[in-house]
Amino acid sequence: MRAVLHGGDLSAARRRHPDAPQPWLDLSTGINPVAYPVGTIAGDMWSRLPDGEQERALIAAAARRYGVAEPARLVAAPGTQALIQLLPRLVAPSRVAIVGPTYEEHQVAWRRQGHDVRIVADMADAATADVIVVVNPDNPTGRLLARTELRAPRTLLVVDEAFIDFLPATASVSGTLPPRTVVLRSFGKTYGLGGLRLGFAIAEPDLAARLRDELGPWVVSGPALAVGRTALLDNMWLQATKERLEEDGRRLDAILTAAGFKPLGGTHLFRLVEQADAPIIVQRLGEHGIHVRSFMRQPQWLRFGLPGDDAAFRRLAAALGTLAS
Amino acid sequence: MRAVLHGGDLSAARRRHPDAPQPWLDLSTGINPVAYPVGTIAGDMWSRLPDGEQERALIAAAARRYGVAEPARLVAAPGTQALIQLLPRLVAPSRVAIVGPTYEEHQVAWRRQGHDVRIVADMADAATADVIVVVNPDNPTGRLLARTELRAPRTLLVVDEAFIDFLPATASVSGTLPPRTVVLRSFGKTYGLGGLRLGFAIAEPDLAARLRDELGPWVVSGPALAVGRTALLDNMWLQATKERLEEDGRRLDAILTAAGFKPLGGTHLFRLVEQADAPIIVQRLGEHGIHVRSFMRQPQWLRFGLPGDDAAFRRLAAALGTLAS
Repeated sequence: MRAVLHGGDLSAARRRHPDAPQPWLDLSTGINPVAYPVGTIAGDMWSRLPDGEQERALIAAAARRYGVAEPARLVAAPGTQALIQLLPRLVAPSRVAIVGPTYEEHQVAWRRQGHDVRIVADMADAATADVIVVVNPDNPTGRLLARTELRAPRTLLVVDEAFIDFLPATASVSGTLPPRTVVLRSFGKTYGLGGLRLGFAIAEPDLAARLRDELGPWVVSGPALAVGRTALLDNMWLQATKERLEEDGRRLDAILTAAGFKPLGGTHLFRLVEQADAPIIVQRLGEHGIHVRSFMRQPQWLRFGLPGDDAAFRRLAAALGTLAS
Repeated sequence: MRAVLHGGDLSAARRRHPDAPQPWLDLSTGINPVAYPVGTIAGDMWSRLPDGEQERALIAAAARRYGVAEPARLVAAPGTQALIQLLPRLVAPSRVAIVGPTYEEHQVAWRRQGHDVRIVADMADAATADVIVVVNPDNPTGRLLARTELRAPRTLLVVDEAFIDFLPATASVSGTLPPRTVVLRSFGKTYGLGGLRLGFAIAEPDLAARLRDELGPWVVSGPALAVGRTALLDNMWLQATKERLEEDGRRLDAILTAAGFKPLGGTHLFRLVEQADAPIIVQRLGEHGIHVRSFMRQPQWLRFGLPGDDAAFRRLAAALGTLAS
């Protein structure tokens, strides 16, 4: 069994609360609850091996979406997790500083490959490291570092921009890549398609070629090529989604505040709060069939994903009202 | 650009023959031309991160299909290519013997990680190596080694059983795994779903756990979990497909023999022939919008995938009749 706790795996919550109302409301992830419409996937995309031309079309769409001038800087992968697994293999044993607390898979992956990993509080504390990893904006705190703060150390800077899509383009380093930097961009979270498995790296052409080579051929599935290409070019959907998420975020804030939780931060796709009796709240929300994200090392923290519709909002408010009374 | 020549990428053939009749008939791959019906994929499988229970259900189906008693020996991956990329990273620099000529990605992957790679003619020639890689039955020759011949050297034996699904179960070592052995099983070729990206490794539990760990979480997409689980349990479809492929194989043999090609071998999903003027035949089939597989190092070889329907058979026969006349 893996030691990292994640959102999204409802199985354990279901076993703990076998009598909870069905279906479960899963607020434990940072995935957009309103998915980009998948539509009909052409039979060829399922049956044939992904074609070079289709891959180039996906890369062109991603380059446009992320403001990357050269397609040679873009690498497509079956989710950014595949890139998180790969990066520590491309660097000789190094001193790695991860600005945290943050998404735990980064430290697991770097430690697995034998690097000397420290969790540091900010970029200043990371100054003597060979490799720095920063999730920007951070998951789960939402802390956003300015572009000017993102300077690479001797070997490599990894900027995980998984939750940056709804922030102004000036927040991202994707289009103005500093030297010795790799940026990770998630597709599934923004487009609500975590099961599709699609993500991107942006890096200087040499490193990008190395990543492509190590991933090997046909890494992105036919359905991901088809859906990804269409979705990444759909600016209207992205803008409408941003507005909906901002409205829904205010509604979620109101519910969490009314429940007496202390807001710590968040992004368009989740909110982090602090509450002294957080483990009890997780337990009682579970009894209502609502799954939220808790943190082993920060037991007072709770992360809430965005409810996807009016019924989900009312269900959460009602469950927290019960808790408050 | 990658140096390995593959079937399946029609782009280059299309550029060489811009006036060829449309649509192209692609016989360049070893993928079953009649795909398992994908059906409707539940929205959750697209939107949510793949769930632990769904992964266990896929593994249980694969264990049953491949005759593997312990699920702990099975590892799911987004295509066996992902495993071919990974295996050479788990072994210290070694003498690697690949029984060939065979599928070239194996040698590319082992060389990339700095191993000392030789191509050998048979298992006897491989005896002094630390690692042996054998594709069984072989692609493209169809040569099948008996289970008793498959003995691991000091470090690791890799048996790529990509094309074994339609042979008797006694041909496979999946269920009777020798020590220090990893078996690769392809899903996309047999089920005609190359774009889905799904494949498996079978290994002793320790090595299987290591592979799982290196691949990381959520490697198999939601659609692949859903379709894979259903398809792997569908014995009736597999049996009917075997019978159809055997009938179609005899029809293909008759066409290739009538064209004067010398049969060299094959599997249920392709045939290999020898012909002195093979490059000219590739060229002229291209003019008819038919793409077949040629080989840089064996210029007299041609590999034909199975045509998928009556029209495709007639089109191939007509094009080869033109050539013969």
